[in-house]
Amino acid sequence: MTAAQAQGSLDVNGGSGRHASDWNSKLYLKFEAERTRAARDLLARVPYCETRLVFDLGCGPGNSTELLASSFPGAAIVGIDTSDNMLDVARARVPGASFVNADIGDWRPPEGADVIFANASLHFLADHRSAITWLLHALRPGGRLAVQMPNNTHEPSHAAMRMVAADGPWASRLLPIAKSLTVVGQAEEYYDLLAPLCRKVDIWQTVYVHPLDGAGDVVEWFAGSGLRPFLDLLTPAETDEFLARYRERLAQAYPGRPNGKVLLRYPRIFFVLQK
Amino acid sequence: MTAAQAQGSLDVNGGSGRHASDWNSKLYLKFEAERTRAARDLLARVPYCETRLVFDLGCGPGNSTELLASSFPGAAIVGIDTSDNMLDVARARVPGASFVNADIGDWRPPEGADVIFANASLHFLADHRSAITWLLHALRPGGRLAVQMPNNTHEPSHAAMRMVAADGPWASRLLPIAKSLTVVGQAEEYYDLLAPLCRKVDIWQTVYVHPLDGAGDVVEWFAGSGLRPFLDLLTPAETDEFLARYRERLAQAYPGRPNGKVLLRYPRIFFVLQK
Repeated sequence: MTAAQAQGSLDVNGGSGRHASDWNSKLYLKFEAERTRAARDLLARVPYCETRLVFDLGCGPGNSTELLASSFPGAAIVGIDTSDNMLDVARARVPGASFVNADIGDWRPPEGADVIFANASLHFLADHRSAITWLLHALRPGGRLAVQMPNNTHEPSHAAMRMVAADGPWASRLLPIAKSLTVVGQAEEYYDLLAPLCRKVDIWQTVYVHPLDGAGDVVEWFAGSGLRPFLDLLTPAETDEFLARYRERLAQAYPGRPNGKVLLRYPRIFFVLQK
Repeated sequence: MTAAQAQGSLDVNGGSGRHASDWNSKLYLKFEAERTRAARDLLARVPYCETRLVFDLGCGPGNSTELLASSFPGAAIVGIDTSDNMLDVARARVPGASFVNADIGDWRPPEGADVIFANASLHFLADHRSAITWLLHALRPGGRLAVQMPNNTHEPSHAAMRMVAADGPWASRLLPIAKSLTVVGQAEEYYDLLAPLCRKVDIWQTVYVHPLDGAGDVVEWFAGSGLRPFLDLLTPAETDEFLARYRERLAQAYPGRPNGKVLLRYPRIFFVLQK
């Protein structure tokens, strides 16, 4: 048991003991319905095509892979992720799919893929714009690239992350992280980049409004995803302190509604590209 | 042929000669795929329930009614609209459904409806908040109310409408209209209003990004919908002048992309309520 667990605080690394900074699939899946909804909405807009080979980039615990497997029943489905913890869960969940431990920043799909699906993963890359163009290149003509990226840099959740990072004993370690995080662009920018490369570009942005049980839930949501680059650089004691300060700021930024819930606005940008 | 048609300009009233200010189903359906997409996205989030009776409020030319008929094959589907022109098109399109000419501001559903669907219609009412609460009241326990409203008051398209209305020989007629148009609220406001009245509230907002062929298409889009309260008060010659000025402002607000298209951002708010 880690110090953090002994204090009853969040076990942000999954407690597997295998890899200190591996993803925690259990924490990630606490909000499974909410997180999977974006994957579902993205997939609903992928136009039908003859499909033999599908890649799920950043497949995590396999929630998106499972959707792909049921939408493309005859196709080979390959999930790619860097987290062994996530891949173990994904393999158990979608036994018919294959999974590869690889970093989607380095990995290149074989040419001729029919569908490449990247739900909430490309924004972790240093240069997601280039990634989109080389993924398009790998698709067969007529193939589809479907991308969803969280677009919450300007949300209170992320302003609070940056403020806590900048104002603590960890500031010198965390500020470079805060500055390096991807700022997702405007729809018009992606349209101008992608329209010359595809037959069809479908772009939209959705702000989901998730009723959660309180500021603590918002902490857990991001501890399972967006806070990871920060928490990776902290000791267990610092992690506790960071999360306590983060929670305090969130409690102000997300006031309780009359029924006691808080509403987490979560903007996400989507593209479905047809080569 | 009207004066406007003779000049090759937009026939905003459908040219049926039946009713000067009736809706023009042809103009409305020029952007059918784009307009129907919101109805499809709304319907996709309506959870399954035993359904015998479905109302489609503001059914227009039946594009949403057709979706409802294929999603609820055993149910009676009733479309409600005030436009005879729209209802004629809807009847031909969805022969299995029933249609009623009624104003959804006055009309009350019988108690016990299973699904009430209001796609891009409630915002035309003076008080859509009250309408939502009485529609909920009419649903059977466990029934669903699905609502989508355009939320573009603050978009350049609507700022331009107001500016043209305020700056012309028609200002004294059109300004009261501009001031009376519904401003759709924030998700949080609707959540607070609706959560105490339902078992489940699902709220989200989507900004669709529609590539159109130019500012002229944006004019046509709104001439078929949001401009109608303004155009209803203008003579044919004024209509031409109004639309020319509107087009000029839109050409500035929606600059051509490198491929010659313009991108119309179209925000829409959605609720699916489960009683």
